[in-house]
Amino acid sequence: MASSYVTPKGKTLQNLRDIANRLRIRSIRATCASNSGHPTSCCSAAEIMSVLFFHTMHYRPNEPGHPSNDRFVLSKGHAAPILYAAWAEVGFIKEPELLNLRKIDSDLEGHPTPRLPFVDVATGSLGQGLGAACGMAYTGKYFDKTSYRIYCLLGDGEFSEGSVWEALQFGSHYQLDNLVAIIDVNRLGQSEAAPLGHDTDVYRKRCEAFGWNTCVVDGHDMEELCQALWQASQQKGKPTMIVAKTFKGRGIPDVENADNWHGKPIPKDKVESVISTIQSQIQTSDVCTIKPPAQDVPPVNNVDIKMPSLPTYNIGEKVATRKAYGLALVKLGNTNKHVVVLDGDTKNSTFAELFKQAHPERYIECYIAEQNMVSVAVGCATRNRTIAFASTFAAFFTRAFDHIRMAAISQSNIKLCGSHSGVSIGEDGPSQMALEDLAMFRTIPGCTVFYPSDAISTEYAVSLAANTKGICFIRTSRPETPILYSQEEKFEVGHAKVVRINDADRVVVIGAGVTLHEALSAADELAKQGIHIRVIDPFTIKPLDADTIISNARATGGHIITVEDHYKEGGIGEAVAAAVSGEPGILVQSLAVSGVPRSGKPAELLDLFGISAKHIITAVKSTFAN
Amino acid sequence: MASSYVTPKGKTLQNLRDIANRLRIRSIRATCASNSGHPTSCCSAAEIMSVLFFHTMHYRPNEPGHPSNDRFVLSKGHAAPILYAAWAEVGFIKEPELLNLRKIDSDLEGHPTPRLPFVDVATGSLGQGLGAACGMAYTGKYFDKTSYRIYCLLGDGEFSEGSVWEALQFGSHYQLDNLVAIIDVNRLGQSEAAPLGHDTDVYRKRCEAFGWNTCVVDGHDMEELCQALWQASQQKGKPTMIVAKTFKGRGIPDVENADNWHGKPIPKDKVESVISTIQSQIQTSDVCTIKPPAQDVPPVNNVDIKMPSLPTYNIGEKVATRKAYGLALVKLGNTNKHVVVLDGDTKNSTFAELFKQAHPERYIECYIAEQNMVSVAVGCATRNRTIAFASTFAAFFTRAFDHIRMAAISQSNIKLCGSHSGVSIGEDGPSQMALEDLAMFRTIPGCTVFYPSDAISTEYAVSLAANTKGICFIRTSRPETPILYSQEEKFEVGHAKVVRINDADRVVVIGAGVTLHEALSAADELAKQGIHIRVIDPFTIKPLDADTIISNARATGGHIITVEDHYKEGGIGEAVAAAVSGEPGILVQSLAVSGVPRSGKPAELLDLFGISAKHIITAVKSTFAN
Repeated sequence: MASSYVTPKGKTLQNLRDIANRLRIRSIRATCASNSGHPTSCCSAAEIMSVLFFHTMHYRPNEPGHPSNDRFVLSKGHAAPILYAAWAEVGFIKEPELLNLRKIDSDLEGHPTPRLPFVDVATGSLGQGLGAACGMAYTGKYFDKTSYRIYCLLGDGEFSEGSVWEALQFGSHYQLDNLVAIIDVNRLGQSEAAPLGHDTDVYRKRCEAFGWNTCVVDGHDMEELCQALWQASQQKGKPTMIVAKTFKGRGIPDVENADNWHGKPIPKDKVESVISTIQSQIQTSDVCTIKPPAQDVPPVNNVDIKMPSLPTYNIGEKVATRKAYGLALVKLGNTNKHVVVLDGDTKNSTFAELFKQAHPERYIECYIAEQNMVSVAVGCATRNRTIAFASTFAAFFTRAFDHIRMAAISQSNIKLCGSHSGVSIGEDGPSQMALEDLAMFRTIPGCTVFYPSDAISTEYAVSLAANTKGICFIRTSRPETPILYSQEEKFEVGHAKVVRINDADRVVVIGAGVTLHEALSAADELAKQGIHIRVIDPFTIKPLDADTIISNARATGGHIITVEDHYKEGGIGEAVAAAVSGEPGILVQSLAVSGVPRSGKPAELLDLFGISAKHIITAVKSTFAN
Repeated sequence: MASSYVTPKGKTLQNLRDIANRLRIRSIRATCASNSGHPTSCCSAAEIMSVLFFHTMHYRPNEPGHPSNDRFVLSKGHAAPILYAAWAEVGFIKEPELLNLRKIDSDLEGHPTPRLPFVDVATGSLGQGLGAACGMAYTGKYFDKTSYRIYCLLGDGEFSEGSVWEALQFGSHYQLDNLVAIIDVNRLGQSEAAPLGHDTDVYRKRCEAFGWNTCVVDGHDMEELCQALWQASQQKGKPTMIVAKTFKGRGIPDVENADNWHGKPIPKDKVESVISTIQSQIQTSDVCTIKPPAQDVPPVNNVDIKMPSLPTYNIGEKVATRKAYGLALVKLGNTNKHVVVLDGDTKNSTFAELFKQAHPERYIECYIAEQNMVSVAVGCATRNRTIAFASTFAAFFTRAFDHIRMAAISQSNIKLCGSHSGVSIGEDGPSQMALEDLAMFRTIPGCTVFYPSDAISTEYAVSLAANTKGICFIRTSRPETPILYSQEEKFEVGHAKVVRINDADRVVVIGAGVTLHEALSAADELAKQGIHIRVIDPFTIKPLDADTIISNARATGGHIITVEDHYKEGGIGEAVAAAVSGEPGILVQSLAVSGVPRSGKPAELLDLFGISAKHIITAVKSTFAN
């Protein structure tokens, strides 16, 4: 039976109000010291932060990353100073450190990053926090099956981002009743009012229509906030959205609710007067008791994740790498219970469905919402709770580029697999063909980019991805291709394979995926004509095995031809050109797709876009002709 | 006064039903011929397509791209065969051509592209059609101020995409009562049922909460469809969403409403029996009269868009390129009334607000919804109605990568400007720093990438972008930088500027934006030491002026140093390395940002990440040392 609500004592409420004002003062001082930042966006959220950190949430104040703690996600990341202020109030940050906000040698950055131990996910690109919070809540409810709860504070401006609505749909669909979101409806965006202004009723209707338990409160009324949060704790089967009407710059005379104060510190000549106005409302200096976590959640050991057995494919057997991905996931999941898999209604194409069939309790269907899928994966991977693999067509990861970028800033450990790369998908046409995914993932700091060319190397890519910290991307292909490697072949990140070698080789050809097979066909045909080429499979495009490429190029006369089912820009050709750009005497020619492709048969398209064996043969011969 | 609804005659309704079945038959035959495609996704929409094309829409059947026509956007692009079938019914496509679906020499691609004159925007990446339709509707209502109307057909699966909700918010916010969307709620997605199944009432509630006039109909009932579309035509101040309950594979025995039929043609041994079942329901063979457009809309002349005057900046004056962008837009808008500007609540940072102040009636505030902003721009630019410039922080265009990718497939003529590039933005930190935007835009086929380094070249970039067909990207910077060029200097796409030259130059340094200024500082400092370097401003990163780079490298000993406020991957360094990769004796060293940056002062960050004058000097000297 639900307990009934007891209004906090007047003293408790006053303590919380006083904390809110102390958070305001710290936010104003810090942004004044840095001469940049968003004090007005902090001040609207002061009461909300106070009640969450000092009345609602259960956590260990000295172990902010403890897995048992309730989680807090500041989706409106530009309000970072009030998050830092809260952790100063907690005692985790030393008060003087706050004045180092945004300095190059301080981790108190302009927007929160996990350089700080109390930050699980970086925010600052708006509309991404709730998706990550959904991933944490899903993990808490369905994987960890424990009592920690997730709180997420959003701005009203970011409700224009579609990714917020993707997360709302996800949260209600999976009945995440351990998730509470609060919108800080302070009305004002960066350059003008947000489209709904202070119309909290429209927010309420929209969130209700999206299946959330919703209530509207005065976001500066401590009692209303306490009650709403208590009601959220009683809610079963639905996440809760608290729509908090607030005023931007609340408590700052002449600034509260005024235009043109976004991202501006209080002028130095006014700051002391503002602070003394706020200070004058503080009546207590009590330290609030923070509630400890209700249950102890053990840490997860995610290192040295082993495949139960070697691959079992035989050389020459034809298997699509996308299918090998699904089969490898099943194996990995058989012996590693923290492996979880996400997909966006493409599981029968990416073969993530094989994992779902084998381990349905660890599969999350994210539907056609790639941004949210990436955010949910990021959330699942926080505090090391899971090893999350997420898949869709590689082309559709472009939808989530900003989320992947932020995942890198979040130091996230997610594994992404994109199928249907390149023109070799055939008839579906250009909208479904990934031709820019290598360029995209190569830009991601610390990202490992696997491009396996057969099922054996795909299985190793999956296993290595699980064991490689940071974001990993595995590029798979639609067509079936023959097994190239023996079951005993070993693969490592950053180690290329020389798959065709002869003392008479006079050029190096680098291919991956379908184009490696085209290169091998070209090698066969050329060999009949007495022309020998060395063929290299890079296996990982980032890091690229420059040593192997350079030494083989030197051994064969210095000519490299790259061939890839990807646009020229940012792909294998440029990666190789950059890797050898400091090496005298090595030349690179790139065969790659150019222009918008079209529908057709895979083989026709490889040929039309200049990346088939025929074109490799021509390129090799013209190398000699020079 | 609104006219009152008159039920169409029984004969008309039967004609429309018969057309629907003919569309079904054509869709089944075409996908059978191509042995791929989505006949079941076509069949659920047959009645909707019939009523739209042969009862509701006003257009010239032989001039599908005429500006006076009502527009139709097939957001669920995988239903392409039924679109082609409709244009065959119209008479624009010859019947036998339908059987060339998805063949390499046919423009009837797997998903629609503007290679076909009746397609305004490519679809196939889901959730993007409605945003483009919003752009068309905004243009019709506020720019063209005429009567053409916009119809958009969506699938239910794509309602999981956040971009759909961004578009819904936009459509009601701007009261686009010339816009009608229809959801084909056929329940089944690709790999399983869509999350809401057949719960049309939830769709209705959500769309209503988003401010749309909404009704639920049986999507196979011609009379209900006629009435709903008539009501939509009477609606003032709101767009209309028709939630149509349908069955996937409608009309195909044993396939209708069954699982596992997504994207699968009817087996060849069953197709004739299926077709005869559908054929048996057809009672008439009348050709429907298509209503002509109500008003004549003149074409827009968008060629040779001139700036009214030369730039007026003086050498040495300090102006941020982002500000020069806003000022250039104002000038361009002063003499070109079809220039329109969009921004996503960053207008006071990108300086798009200057255009809004000068030409408020041609400014569209898109709020914090970058995906939709790009789609709206694409919609505004269709049929050559406007020259649309859209801006936000360059980092946030990553949010819209998929939409930009699709804009290229759409042959769109949009101009995008990203401000706040690189670590030089300073204290806001990594979430706000664009360090992958050059890599992203370089992958876009046909995209012109401008990276101006002062206000004069920025003004030329804006003017050239307006005159350069296809997608253009202008990368601007936050800090103020001195004017480098005289007012008479001429700029061209693909033409670099040699900004520092001396016969004694022994290395080429290529910089752009803030790093060009660092390169010039380095050159000054090195010159004092008797070391001369040649400094090149590429102006456009794509196309890159390889000739100028190569000839200057040859003239100075073959060493190039690139320096950029961007990640190494896919940026200027790789573009240059690729451009010279076939040139013996030219070596490239790349100075670029690596790893996730942090908050700090701009100058500190340029230094910390190895792209300041100091690092250029070191690199130059180490070149000599080798």
